[in-house]
Amino acid sequence: MRIPYQEVCEVLVRALENLRFDPERARLCARLFAEASRDGVHSHGLERFPRFVRSVRKGLVDVQGEPSLISTYGALERWNGNSGPGNLNAYQSMARAISLSQRNGIGCVALSNTNHWMRGGTYGWQAAEAGAIGVCWTNTLPNLPPWGARDPRVGNNPVVIAIPRPEGHVVLDMAMSQFSYGALASHRARGEHLPVVGGFDVDGQLTRDPEQIEASGRPLPIGFWKGSGLALMLDLVAGLLSGGQFTWQIAADPEQESKISQVFISFDLSQLSQPEATAELANQVIRHLKFSTRTGEQIRYPGERVLETRSENMTKGIPVSASIWNEIQAL
Amino acid sequence: MRIPYQEVCEVLVRALENLRFDPERARLCARLFAEASRDGVHSHGLERFPRFVRSVRKGLVDVQGEPSLISTYGALERWNGNSGPGNLNAYQSMARAISLSQRNGIGCVALSNTNHWMRGGTYGWQAAEAGAIGVCWTNTLPNLPPWGARDPRVGNNPVVIAIPRPEGHVVLDMAMSQFSYGALASHRARGEHLPVVGGFDVDGQLTRDPEQIEASGRPLPIGFWKGSGLALMLDLVAGLLSGGQFTWQIAADPEQESKISQVFISFDLSQLSQPEATAELANQVIRHLKFSTRTGEQIRYPGERVLETRSENMTKGIPVSASIWNEIQAL
Repeated sequence: MRIPYQEVCEVLVRALENLRFDPERARLCARLFAEASRDGVHSHGLERFPRFVRSVRKGLVDVQGEPSLISTYGALERWNGNSGPGNLNAYQSMARAISLSQRNGIGCVALSNTNHWMRGGTYGWQAAEAGAIGVCWTNTLPNLPPWGARDPRVGNNPVVIAIPRPEGHVVLDMAMSQFSYGALASHRARGEHLPVVGGFDVDGQLTRDPEQIEASGRPLPIGFWKGSGLALMLDLVAGLLSGGQFTWQIAADPEQESKISQVFISFDLSQLSQPEATAELANQVIRHLKFSTRTGEQIRYPGERVLETRSENMTKGIPVSASIWNEIQAL
Repeated sequence: MRIPYQEVCEVLVRALENLRFDPERARLCARLFAEASRDGVHSHGLERFPRFVRSVRKGLVDVQGEPSLISTYGALERWNGNSGPGNLNAYQSMARAISLSQRNGIGCVALSNTNHWMRGGTYGWQAAEAGAIGVCWTNTLPNLPPWGARDPRVGNNPVVIAIPRPEGHVVLDMAMSQFSYGALASHRARGEHLPVVGGFDVDGQLTRDPEQIEASGRPLPIGFWKGSGLALMLDLVAGLLSGGQFTWQIAADPEQESKISQVFISFDLSQLSQPEATAELANQVIRHLKFSTRTGEQIRYPGERVLETRSENMTKGIPVSASIWNEIQAL
């Protein structure tokens, strides 16, 4: 079904107020969930909302928790997320990084003790809207076996990189696993194989069969050993800069994941060149990419489909499954 | 053959002085080449030196060229590399980023108009030696087809991330291609297939045969579409921050590659915690990784083999092929 964007926000705000969110924080939190679905990232939008509510009820997320400054080093600051809602904490942290970059060219907030930020791309779009290049990443519970291992010991640690552009920001939002467990499940449900190898089967052979990968618990890091190494480094940097938990310290049960570490970096591009000049440079790069000789599929830049999806969903309503929507309305 | 480290440095210094390098710059440039081979990165050490000399003779590299400050924004600075030797420019830029981070917590140098930095890991080790987390990347000539394309339109844009640790820094140095052309050539020379798929054959099928990939000119980005997107973002950020060239503007002939763009970021970890505390945190993460259930191979952290290789090569001499060493001695 499809629900008008405004109605989605109102229903989410009501549910959050029932959880004792302050009205203003309820509005922002609701908006960030609604925007994820509006932009087509259902897995971290409405579909995720009931689980978010559970995490509040379990006490993993403190609805009053807000980031507090631990220490400042000029353009780099360490903040404690105080177990606040992950999307509100992340939004405030990127806002602070942007503000630091407006004074110092570059700004960085390292955040400990926070919760899942839901759709990571949100904070890339946020930076780009402010005319900044945004870079951020999070660690996660151990959900990915490092290269050469059978058991999950690194996180899939999503990274976001965003560039502002009037025609549509260029926003990369990618995890270190080739496919999320959500993607495996939806391929399985459709009876489809993955487009490329996505993990190992129980016999240790690479496979495109999502069911085999779910059975082995061995999804692939991107680039095999390379993504495994990158995931480790992202965790190390996030933990060392924030003073917070590393992946190995985070509860391995997804329903218990909390107290994670994140890094938010902003480069204030508006000081470096005129927005029009920046846009023209980025457009040239995109045009050159598009001129490639295609092998069949479209050649796309990261985030390209978002504006189209957004526009369609604002017109026709936000897509949501009836069961999830009923569940949310009852919260 | 194996040549004592000191002798390697002396021979390289002589060759560089013949090219009219100032003595002090010749010593640093020689050291950086020698250290790459010492640490086992032969492709960007002695094996690369004759090509570096050719780039000087062709006028692509100006031996007198040094970075000059274009503009400063506090913790972020824009520098012009003035076509200087890529390794000297990069070394100076990371040194400057470290110094900026010592004042601001984080520091960033965006460098335009520079040349190939040779072994990227060098600048990661440099930051880690200074007690900093180093992050840097470079764009390159177009050498990688983006996902869905037949022709190379993005660069393999290597990224370096380094963490200081007394027991051995953790240093990731990875390009966005799954295998370099050098790796394809050496597998082919040994008559071996790649350990995993590395690109497409001329019929557009994924293959582990290095010869087929060389024939098609279609090596794979890491993580298929994911590395393709990441390569694009790294190029965009490097070009926009530095004001320098993007991949599409860089000569596609490797022998003509010049005027590339790079970013150097340092986080001064020494302000955030005591080195011993930092080391213990990093050690815990590494230990936890090593405790994984192995599937047969070793589970390694990025940079793990370097110290062992270094120690062996300092004792037994730096490995180099006779033909390359003869060529270098004659320069």
